[in-house]
Amino acid sequence: MSSQRATAFVPGHVTAFFSAHPADDPVVAGSRGAGVTLTDGVTVRVSAGDDPGSPGTGSRTIDGETGSIGAVDDVLDELDAAAAGVAVETDLPIGAGFGVSGAAALGTALAANAAFDRRRSENELIRIAHAAEVARGTGLGDVVAQARGGVPVRLEPGAPGVGELDGVPATARVEYVTFGELSTEVVLGGDTAALSAAGEAALDRLRADPRLPTLMDAAREFASEADLLVPEVAEAITAVDESPEEPDDPGAAMAMLGRTVFALGTGLSDAGYDPEGCRIDAAGARLVGERGRE
Amino acid sequence: MSSQRATAFVPGHVTAFFSAHPADDPVVAGSRGAGVTLTDGVTVRVSAGDDPGSPGTGSRTIDGETGSIGAVDDVLDELDAAAAGVAVETDLPIGAGFGVSGAAALGTALAANAAFDRRRSENELIRIAHAAEVARGTGLGDVVAQARGGVPVRLEPGAPGVGELDGVPATARVEYVTFGELSTEVVLGGDTAALSAAGEAALDRLRADPRLPTLMDAAREFASEADLLVPEVAEAITAVDESPEEPDDPGAAMAMLGRTVFALGTGLSDAGYDPEGCRIDAAGARLVGERGRE
Repeated sequence: MSSQRATAFVPGHVTAFFSAHPADDPVVAGSRGAGVTLTDGVTVRVSAGDDPGSPGTGSRTIDGETGSIGAVDDVLDELDAAAAGVAVETDLPIGAGFGVSGAAALGTALAANAAFDRRRSENELIRIAHAAEVARGTGLGDVVAQARGGVPVRLEPGAPGVGELDGVPATARVEYVTFGELSTEVVLGGDTAALSAAGEAALDRLRADPRLPTLMDAAREFASEADLLVPEVAEAITAVDESPEEPDDPGAAMAMLGRTVFALGTGLSDAGYDPEGCRIDAAGARLVGERGRE
Repeated sequence: MSSQRATAFVPGHVTAFFSAHPADDPVVAGSRGAGVTLTDGVTVRVSAGDDPGSPGTGSRTIDGETGSIGAVDDVLDELDAAAAGVAVETDLPIGAGFGVSGAAALGTALAANAAFDRRRSENELIRIAHAAEVARGTGLGDVVAQARGGVPVRLEPGAPGVGELDGVPATARVEYVTFGELSTEVVLGGDTAALSAAGEAALDRLRADPRLPTLMDAAREFASEADLLVPEVAEAITAVDESPEEPDDPGAAMAMLGRTVFALGTGLSDAGYDPEGCRIDAAGARLVGERGRE
């Protein structure tokens, strides 16, 4: 049999607000909340054999450097594909609130399923990636959001078959600036009661008015009530607010969980920042290529 | 207030097999089955006011000619947007099994919601379009499939909140040839018991092995068992089968419900046909632009 390889793309995901819903079963655990998926994301190449130009057997790289992500290894184990070569590539900053670990896990699930001909459905692959990410404590809601694309609203926590999603029907340019890392494990490992109460209130607000300006308003209120706002982000939000370009501009908010500010339209550029720019990703996670079996 | 307009794109959807599940409530009614969504689709432009270059108040056009689609009018009524100008544009043949009416209804829901600032969520808009399409008798499962994109598997019938979806994780080129129309209303209005039994069997097969070659196999078996195969389509399926290019080629199948044959890869070209070509659409229905409110 010829060697098999496949490539998947998974959008970045910036959470605007959330409530944490832990459970013993990682398929059932998750978060409620909302965010935006980004055309900036993570590309995962998986190879089931050695051939030139493909990741070598058993290799693990992140942006070309040797390195592994726990949830990725767990996904490969679950698919009986630990021998895979896996190359993760992303322009997004890692540990800054873009869901890179969830994207890497989901991209690995999609690409390894194709490369190893594992015959799982989309829901099964999302479930495997979600469970791996939750069990590693690196995220609660990124995977299901990244699978859907657009502006996902997590109505009920958990993987497909357990959780429930809706979406804000919208498209927009997104800008972001990152000031550094913030540990998801530390925040999620602490007392999340106040955070979750603020997250539930924000979700109720968005469900009553599912539009982007309301999402951004609810995100700002959540960051402040959950006491997660860091000084550089707070300053950027104020600067975007005071920028005179667009009186109805939806403004900026903090990415959960990262020292990252994001804005819709040209909010950060207008305020004098030098942001990265992309768009809301309509498609969600997807296989982009297969070789060897077709 | 300035005039508002918005544009949505909805992929075409070719149903491979299905079972019909009628119900008094059109939100609950629907179909189980599977198919592929196409990058060839329907673009709907909706204008909430008169301005140059936008569809005029109350106007309805299909590919530039005056004409309306029942489900589109019902969606506009439901959104209190009957004054909208609506321009539907598509390269797909109408009435040939591509879900054009469902796509037009869903695209209208997305674009009218944005143009008229109706503040509905994605699930609500899909529900409105699904109910309109089912009530008009022009389709049962296209709308929910088109909303998801990719290779949608309809596990349970009905709109979001009632139905349930999965997907075959795959990407591929799709080719198609159309030989003419076939009335969805006539087939769905007749005795659907044998058809639905064949559809359920095909779905069980695909769930056990969610891959494209299995989808195509199950589709061929369904068309034959449900006695829906028309001569030109049967001939094309045989021709693709006998084409020597690729021994493992997944072959061709009939689009439900149309006098249309579709193939993955280059099956129809290889067999000497002159097909239209596109790809599986990863994204599903999406808003592609808004003006006036941002």
